[in-house]
Parts: sequence; C-alpha cells; structure tokens
Amino acid sequence: MKSIIIASTSTLHGGNYLEYLLPVLKSHFKNCKSILFIPYARPGGISHDEYTQKAAQAFNSINITVKGIHEYENPQEAVKNAEGIFTGGGNTFLLVTQLYKNNIMQLLSETVKNGTPYLGSSAGSNICGLSMQTTNDMPIIYPPSFQTLGLIPFNLNPHYLDADLQSKHMGETRETRIKEFHAFNSIPVLGLREGSWLEVKGDKITLKGDLKARLFKQNQTPEELEAESDLSDLK
Amino acid sequence: MKSIIIASTSTLHGGNYLEYLLPVLKSHFKNCKSILFIPYARPGGISHDEYTQKAAQAFNSINITVKGIHEYENPQEAVKNAEGIFTGGGNTFLLVTQLYKNNIMQLLSETVKNGTPYLGSSAGSNICGLSMQTTNDMPIIYPPSFQTLGLIPFNLNPHYLDADLQSKHMGETRETRIKEFHAFNSIPVLGLREGSWLEVKGDKITLKGDLKARLFKQNQTPEELEAESDLSDLK
Repeated sequence: MKSIIIASTSTLHGGNYLEYLLPVLKSHFKNCKSILFIPYARPGGISHDEYTQKAAQAFNSINITVKGIHEYENPQEAVKNAEGIFTGGGNTFLLVTQLYKNNIMQLLSETVKNGTPYLGSSAGSNICGLSMQTTNDMPIIYPPSFQTLGLIPFNLNPHYLDADLQSKHMGETRETRIKEFHAFNSIPVLGLREGSWLEVKGDKITLKGDLKARLFKQNQTPEELEAESDLSDLK
Repeated sequence: MKSIIIASTSTLHGGNYLEYLLPVLKSHFKNCKSILFIPYARPGGISHDEYTQKAAQAFNSINITVKGIHEYENPQEAVKNAEGIFTGGGNTFLLVTQLYKNNIMQLLSETVKNGTPYLGSSAGSNICGLSMQTTNDMPIIYPPSFQTLGLIPFNLNPHYLDADLQSKHMGETRETRIKEFHAFNSIPVLGLREGSWLEVKGDKITLKGDLKARLFKQNQTPEELEAESDLSDLK
C-alpha cells in the first residue's frame, strides 16, 4: 500500500530543517530504523555528503539513521533495499536528470507504489506528479525527459505563492504560469503553500497542514481547497 | 553589422505595450517599412493573430507595419526576407520549441548576425543569449534543446528581480537560482531589470535605460553595472 508524504517545503520561515514535519515523520517512518536519502537535487554550495548530513541531523531526533544514495555503489540496489526513502529539495531539473542518469526513475516509482514509505520536499515533491512541468526551478541542466514518478495522478506546484497585488513587477505570477501550462496540458495542478503537505495512504490522498491549497484545472476557475480535503478522485 | 535591442520587458508598470521603447525603436528600425513579428512565445489566452495585432498597434505609431511569421507559408523565407524582426515575450520553452520545430533557430541567428535589425523582449530577449537556461519561465513544453541564438556571448535573465528581504517565502530568490546555474555552467548571466535593455551595434554591447543591471559570473561576487556600461568584452 502506498505511504507517501509530499511536502511543499522542507523548512518553514524561522524554523529548522523538517522541524514542523517531525511528528508526522515519526509516525510515517515508524517501521524504519534507517532511510535512504536522495540528495541529487542538492542546492548550490553543498556536497551530497553535507546535504545528507543535514537530513541525518533532523532524523536523528526521531531515532532514524540516514544514508545517502551516493554512498552506495549500486543506486538501484539501494532503492530496492531501502526501508524508507526521502528525496530532498533543490533544483528539479538537476534531480530529474540524475534520476534518469542513474537509471532509477522507473524503479523508484515502482518501489514507492509497492509500499516503501516515501517523503518528498520541494523538488522531491515535484517529482511525485506526472511531470516536472510545473516546477518553479531554473532549467540549469537539460534532462532527458520531463516525465516523473507519477505517484499521484496530477501535478504539483510546491512553494505555491499568491500574487502580490502591490507589486509593480511585470513578470508572470505563479497563477499565470500555471495557466500557461494548461494551454498545452490537461493535467490538474495543485498549488501547495509552504506548510501544507499531501498524505497518500493507498489510493487515499488528503491535504494536510493548516493552510488551504489552490487547485488549477484546465479551462476552469481555480479553487481553494480546505485543509483535510480528500483529493483521491482528482485526475 | 549586428543591430539588436534586447529588452527586459515589453511593458513597464502603468505603461502601454512597448511605449517606453518607441523613441528607441523609431531609430532602430528607421530603414524598415515593415517588420516580421515572431509570436511563438505567445502568452496564454491569445492567438498568434491577436498577439501580432498588439505588436502592430504599437508599431503603427511609428509608421511601421507588422506581419506575423505564422501568416507566411514558409517561415524560413519570411525570416530571410524580413526588413526587421521582433520576437515578443511569453513562455521561453514554448518559443524555443517552436523555433526548432519550424527549423528557423539557426537561420534566425545567422540572419540577425548578418545585420537584419532585431528586437527582443522578455522571452524574445532570453533567446539572444547562448542558452535559455536562465529563463524564469515554467517548462510547459519540452524543447529539443536549450541552446538559443547566441547573438551575445553570455546569458540573460530578463525581468530581473531583487530579493524581497521582508518575505517569509522559502522558495529560492532569483539570485540563488542564477547561482545554481553557475554550479554547472560558466557562462556569465546579466540580470536585466524591467526598464533596461541592451543595445548591440556590431561588436559593441551597451547597457541602456536608467537602471543598473546585475552581473553574475561563476565563482565571483555579483556586481552592479551602471547604465551605459560597455559589455563588449563580457564572455
């Protein structure tokens, strides 16, 4: 049975890494002594080791050890044998490129669909959708495909940001960008604000956290969904 | 001799389409009775015809007629025969995909390098650099390549936006995104604020408008460039 947490962000303003999610993660990974960390999206300036260390520090407080996928000779075996998996944030183009390059995109999808508990934050959440085409990230590297894990039958926009009505900036708002996506794609897009996450248990998908999320469907007016909304039928 | 205007934005807050640039364009296109408009990046919700009409309206005030490339049976012939060319803004992924699909990326580059006066705004400016990898746009479509026209030997970030120091949003700032680009690419990136443009005359590249621009080089502290800075040696 699928067991997945898909978080908009790893960190809330003023908080520590994963801090706000720790009570949820304690229960989510309750059967895991150790989890596999995928640091491929790593933000600039830190190594895979340093990024893994940061994740390990957070999980240490709930008595779970963390090992980076880059520490294994065979990343496919690492995914297959993992008790639980966490993919951290950073740049989605980089993450997707690395998942394809290491030939684990499909395996990771199958493994999580078969029940290995998964946590994604930011870029690690983006890849849970059907494609990475609603990422906010800069295309710093050319991935072999935009297709992603398809753990849920729609797309996500993590770090969803409402338009600043006072702004004099003429660049597109987030909502405008998602509308552009819908000019060419029919996949629904859920804008997940920082502090929200999706809980996936088998086929049940629930919006968690205190905030509303913004749902975009092709040719329809966007709608605000209350926390605890059931998204199981969204596709 | 190359003759190019590369504008951060088509429109300033509170202004009309291309309004702030019209005095510059009157001189830039002084030998053109008619120019070719490339509407391929078209923003959502309007047709190529409607977008071309919008450009035509602006150019009408300086007595230049505008014809859209989509009105020609053969887009390659249209580029070859153009007196001047304007590529409008919208989504860069879409624009680049269409340029490749219509087999005019290389031809457009050669034509402008050979002296056909060119204007780009926003996405139409992004493609003037070596690659589209410093665009702000959402990857709504998968282009065959990220390589672009290479009219200048560096990359651009149009609609450059300074970090909002009051913000509690945890998504990456524009500066952070460009630093991520430099983790994997050595090409300099010029952040062009709305109201700035580059003037390219032969090998001379000058920063125009009243604002400073922000220059990012790999492994160096970003620097602010004054208006009228000479960028001819940047690469």
